[in-house]
Amino acid sequence: MPTRHEITTYFRSLQDCICAALHQADGGTFGEDAWDRPGGGGGRARVLNGTHIEKGGVNFSAVHGELPPAAAASLHVDPEETGFYATGVSIVLHPRNPHVPIIHMNVRYFELDGGRFWFGGGIDLTPHYIVPEQAAFFHRQLKDTCDRFDPAYYPKFKIWADDYFYIPHRQETRGVGGIFFDRLQPATEEKDKRTLFNFTAAVGETFAPTYLQLLELNKDKPFTEREAEWQQLRRGRYVEFNLVWDRGTKFGLTTNGRTESILMSLPPLAGWAYDFHPGAGSREAETLAGLVKGKDWLGE
Amino acid sequence: MPTRHEITTYFRSLQDCICAALHQADGGTFGEDAWDRPGGGGGRARVLNGTHIEKGGVNFSAVHGELPPAAAASLHVDPEETGFYATGVSIVLHPRNPHVPIIHMNVRYFELDGGRFWFGGGIDLTPHYIVPEQAAFFHRQLKDTCDRFDPAYYPKFKIWADDYFYIPHRQETRGVGGIFFDRLQPATEEKDKRTLFNFTAAVGETFAPTYLQLLELNKDKPFTEREAEWQQLRRGRYVEFNLVWDRGTKFGLTTNGRTESILMSLPPLAGWAYDFHPGAGSREAETLAGLVKGKDWLGE
Repeated sequence: MPTRHEITTYFRSLQDCICAALHQADGGTFGEDAWDRPGGGGGRARVLNGTHIEKGGVNFSAVHGELPPAAAASLHVDPEETGFYATGVSIVLHPRNPHVPIIHMNVRYFELDGGRFWFGGGIDLTPHYIVPEQAAFFHRQLKDTCDRFDPAYYPKFKIWADDYFYIPHRQETRGVGGIFFDRLQPATEEKDKRTLFNFTAAVGETFAPTYLQLLELNKDKPFTEREAEWQQLRRGRYVEFNLVWDRGTKFGLTTNGRTESILMSLPPLAGWAYDFHPGAGSREAETLAGLVKGKDWLGE
Repeated sequence: MPTRHEITTYFRSLQDCICAALHQADGGTFGEDAWDRPGGGGGRARVLNGTHIEKGGVNFSAVHGELPPAAAASLHVDPEETGFYATGVSIVLHPRNPHVPIIHMNVRYFELDGGRFWFGGGIDLTPHYIVPEQAAFFHRQLKDTCDRFDPAYYPKFKIWADDYFYIPHRQETRGVGGIFFDRLQPATEEKDKRTLFNFTAAVGETFAPTYLQLLELNKDKPFTEREAEWQQLRRGRYVEFNLVWDRGTKFGLTTNGRTESILMSLPPLAGWAYDFHPGAGSREAETLAGLVKGKDWLGE
């Protein structure tokens, strides 16, 4: 069965592979910032200010120590088993061209000293302009990966993403969703640790080829000033979701997490306008109409 | 003693007077958006996209109805007295020129059907570049207003502002503070309702002359691209405070408040950069060094 060491080594190399693929496609070079966590462990933040990616963060971390009481309560962990180990890769890319979508990916492994462990992760896409065929391609890629492990995974994790990446005060989803899963463990999944690890790794490996195809399709499309302004407003919504509703961000910021790593997900620039409504029938209005839960993006 | 009707009429005219003064100084004209609250009451949102103010909101509202259970709990209100009336004026101005500070002002009155009532409010200043003499002028204005009512008010409400307008995950105050107060009522203040109303009104009336002087002093200062970028980063911090820590914003967004009114405080554009540190000895570094609690801005 995979040890924490094996999983950590894999996640570190996943970060390397994804950065190499993004460098290849974008032309820009990542900066690296290695950091240590005072309580134990650390990470490698990789930051891209590239040709097509205006602000991209690809983070690897492997941290350990004692869970603070608030964190233990939030994770429903017994007070006796607060020694933990956590490792993962987390990515958000904000492209320059509004026709290229924002993307987020995260894969993670969490272990308690008592022996309990679980995997979590997800990928979700936030197009500034929804293109149904591209949303279908994105979901198809995710479904193909899920189906290799369990035909129940894609439908279940797609709903989970719809519910997680939702902005109640706007009554909008963050984008066209994707998949989200957490606390995958042998006891509940009827799969062994190796299989759950392989599934999590497969999700991680789905990221680069899927996003690079969307980047390639859209990166050279011309765009207008109005489209760039709309992009800023959609980025504003991204900020609202992350700062108001995202449980990971909230957990990190209120339990003394590493602020710069947590907030790497924020866009380089974001905008707000009072009570903005796109004109009826516009592509912006069409996009808004698509930001709803429960939509079958596969279109089958 | 002032009735809810008198207080409401006063706040409505305060909004008019402040908008007139800002129009006079800025040249730009406010747009108005009158709105109704489904549960009772409504408001007038006034929005300025002006010559010197890039995005300004001056809101008046007077709402009533039944407090939702979560709101009642949050306000420590007995389950029997959930009928409420609330009115107030709330302002945030984001200037174009980074040498002009961001400002926030709020005055409010809250009444429960059982008869309990209180006043609240505050003004705080967020310079992109701290100018100590201007911070001293700002605090002096607030102190003068407070001192007319109670010499204990300024020191008490200044500390309250330091504690309230604080960003724990950055270990920074939002700006140079100001005053903040809440739940002022005869039983605790040893002042009658008229006096507390007069104090709240005086705070509201301190806003325009104080801010317009700061606007006048700075609005025509030349600025560089670097200073404009720094302004975006400081606006990013403003967004972080409002969306992560501001209790009013959180309360509104999670109790089905009017999103557009609540988020009028957000800047037109805001920026984030990974792990940005201004150079030692720069004016940006000096400003960061000033964003601490407990500083005596009066410099006496």
